[in-house]
Amino acid sequence: MDLRLINKETVRELLSMKRAIELMRDAYTSLSAGMVDSPLRTALVNDAGTVLYKPAYSDSAGVFCAKVVSVFADNVNKGLPVTPGIIIVNSAETGMPVALVEAGYLTSLRTGAATGLATDLFCAKGVKVAALFGTGGQSYHQLEAMLEVRDFETIYVFSRNEENAKRFCAEHQSAFPNCKLIANPCRGVLKQCEVITLATTSPVAVIYDEEISDNVHINAIGSLGPNRTEVGTDTMLRAKVYVDQKSACLAEAGEICLLAEAGLIDDSFEVTEIGEVLSRPSEVLLDGVSVFKSVGNAIQDLVCTAEVLRVAELDELGQKVSL
Amino acid sequence: MDLRLINKETVRELLSMKRAIELMRDAYTSLSAGMVDSPLRTALVNDAGTVLYKPAYSDSAGVFCAKVVSVFADNVNKGLPVTPGIIIVNSAETGMPVALVEAGYLTSLRTGAATGLATDLFCAKGVKVAALFGTGGQSYHQLEAMLEVRDFETIYVFSRNEENAKRFCAEHQSAFPNCKLIANPCRGVLKQCEVITLATTSPVAVIYDEEISDNVHINAIGSLGPNRTEVGTDTMLRAKVYVDQKSACLAEAGEICLLAEAGLIDDSFEVTEIGEVLSRPSEVLLDGVSVFKSVGNAIQDLVCTAEVLRVAELDELGQKVSL
Repeated sequence: MDLRLINKETVRELLSMKRAIELMRDAYTSLSAGMVDSPLRTALVNDAGTVLYKPAYSDSAGVFCAKVVSVFADNVNKGLPVTPGIIIVNSAETGMPVALVEAGYLTSLRTGAATGLATDLFCAKGVKVAALFGTGGQSYHQLEAMLEVRDFETIYVFSRNEENAKRFCAEHQSAFPNCKLIANPCRGVLKQCEVITLATTSPVAVIYDEEISDNVHINAIGSLGPNRTEVGTDTMLRAKVYVDQKSACLAEAGEICLLAEAGLIDDSFEVTEIGEVLSRPSEVLLDGVSVFKSVGNAIQDLVCTAEVLRVAELDELGQKVSL
Repeated sequence: MDLRLINKETVRELLSMKRAIELMRDAYTSLSAGMVDSPLRTALVNDAGTVLYKPAYSDSAGVFCAKVVSVFADNVNKGLPVTPGIIIVNSAETGMPVALVEAGYLTSLRTGAATGLATDLFCAKGVKVAALFGTGGQSYHQLEAMLEVRDFETIYVFSRNEENAKRFCAEHQSAFPNCKLIANPCRGVLKQCEVITLATTSPVAVIYDEEISDNVHINAIGSLGPNRTEVGTDTMLRAKVYVDQKSACLAEAGEICLLAEAGLIDDSFEVTEIGEVLSRPSEVLLDGVSVFKSVGNAIQDLVCTAEVLRVAELDELGQKVSL
C-alpha cells in the first residue's frame, strides 16, 4: 500500500488560516446537523502519560481520519513535544490507508480557526481592540485568526510570565504591521476590549466580570476538563453562551459544568451550538456579552486533513512511501 | 518526529512462526492476568465499508499499539486487499509515534500462532493426522502453525471449491516435505483426524458431530459474530471449551452465543481461557474432544508488533522517515 506522508511544513504551506476558517463553517454545520460520526475517544494510559485515539468520519469530508495524540508532560524535559500527534487517513471508497499527517500544527491551526469563525460571527465588523491571554503553543494561531476576520488596531497580550508576553509580541509583531501588540499592560485596558480570547491552561477564571466591558465577545479555547474554567461564574451567567458541541461541553467544559455543580443553572440554561447559528446568522445579537466555548472536536481535524490531502494529491506534495 | 516503516516483507523476515507461538504464551498469560489494556474497538462505517480502530497497551510489551483495519468487501473487485490494515506504534516512555507496521501479514501470522499454541497445549505429542478447513488468506499460517508444533504426516485440506483446495495443496506442499497435503478427500477421513482447524467464513457448522473422532482437538478461528459458528451444537456441548478471552467470546463467538440463545447452556457452562491453562498445563486433559475458539485479541498484535519493532531497531531494518 502507498502512503503519503505530510509533515508540518507541508500542512502550513497548504492550509491558510482563511481557508481553515471557511472549513470550520462546514465542520460545525455538519456537526450540528448530526452528519458527523465522531465516537468517544479512546485513551490508553501508563505511568508516563496518555495516548488518545480520536477517529472521525463524515461523508462530506470524504475520508476516514483518526488522530493519535499523546500527552506526556515530562517530554518537555527531554526536548520533545508534550503532545505529539499524527493523523491516519483512510480512503472513504476503499478503506485503504492513504496518508499520515503531522497533527500538531494542524490542531493549533484548526483551534485558531474556530476562534476566527466565532469572532466573525459574534462581533461587530468594526471592532478594533482585543486581548489575548496565554502565549503557549496555541496562541499564535489564536492571534492570526482574530486578525484574519477583523482589523484590530490593538491586541493586548497577557501572560502570567511577563517575559513570555514580551517575547510573544516581539516575535509576532512584524507579521501583523497594522496591529499593535502590547505585552502585559495594566488590566484596566480590559474594559476597552471588544474581543477577549483565552488560550491558557489556568484552572480558574483569568478575567473577572467587573474588569470587562458590557459589550464583549469572549473565546475560551484553553483549559479543558469539567473542573477547570477560564471564565468566571458571573460572566457566564450573563453571557449568551455558544459552544462547538453541546453534549461535549456539558460533559467536559468547566465553564458550564461548574455552574451546574454549584446549582447556579438548571436544564433551562441556554447553550447554542455554533453550527446551529451558521444557518441563521442574521439572528445573532452582536450586543452584550457572548462566550464561545470550544473543547475541540474531531470534525475540525477531519475537514482540515481532508483539505490538506486533497491539495497535496493535486500538487503531488508530501513524501510517498510504500508499506 | 521520526517513524520506522515496516512492511510485510520485513515482518515476515523478522518474526518466525516459532517465535510468534512463544509470544502468544506471553500474550494470553497477560490477558488472563488482567495486565492488558485493550478497550473496545471503535468502528467507523460508511456505505462502502468499515474502518476499525483497535488500540492496546501492556507494560510488558513496552509500546502502545493501535491497529487500524478496514473491511471493504468490494475491494476484491478492485484488486485491493479486502481487509487492509496498519499498526501505529507509540513509545511507552515518551508517547512519540515511532513506527508504522503493515498489519495484514502480522494478523495472519498471529492468528496462526494462536492455533499453534492451542494445538501444542491440547493435543498429544504423537498426533499424526489433521484437517484444515478453508483455503483463504489465513490458511497458510494455520497450516504452518500446526506443523510447527507437531509432526503431522497427513493434513487433509477442505474447501467448498475443490480447485481452491488443490491449488492450496500444490502451492504449499514443497514447504512441508514431510507432511502429505491432500485436497478435498472423502469426508470419511475426518474420523482419523486428531486435530481439525477451521478457518472458514461459513455461517454454519462445517463439521458434523458424527463425522469426527471422540479424541480430537478443534481450533475454530474463522467465522466471527454471535450468529455464526463453524462448530455444531452437539460437538460444542460434549467438548472441553477453551477460548482466548471469555468476555469477548461470550459476546462475539457464535459457537457459544448460539448455544445460549437456544437455551442449551446456562451460566454454569464451563469455558476456560487459554491464558489460565498456561500457568497449569499439567492439568490439561488430552483425551476427548476439545475446542479452542478464538475471536482474536489486540494483545496478539501488540506482542508481535513489539517484537518486530525491537528486532527492526536492533538490526536497523525498515524505512526511516521524518514527519
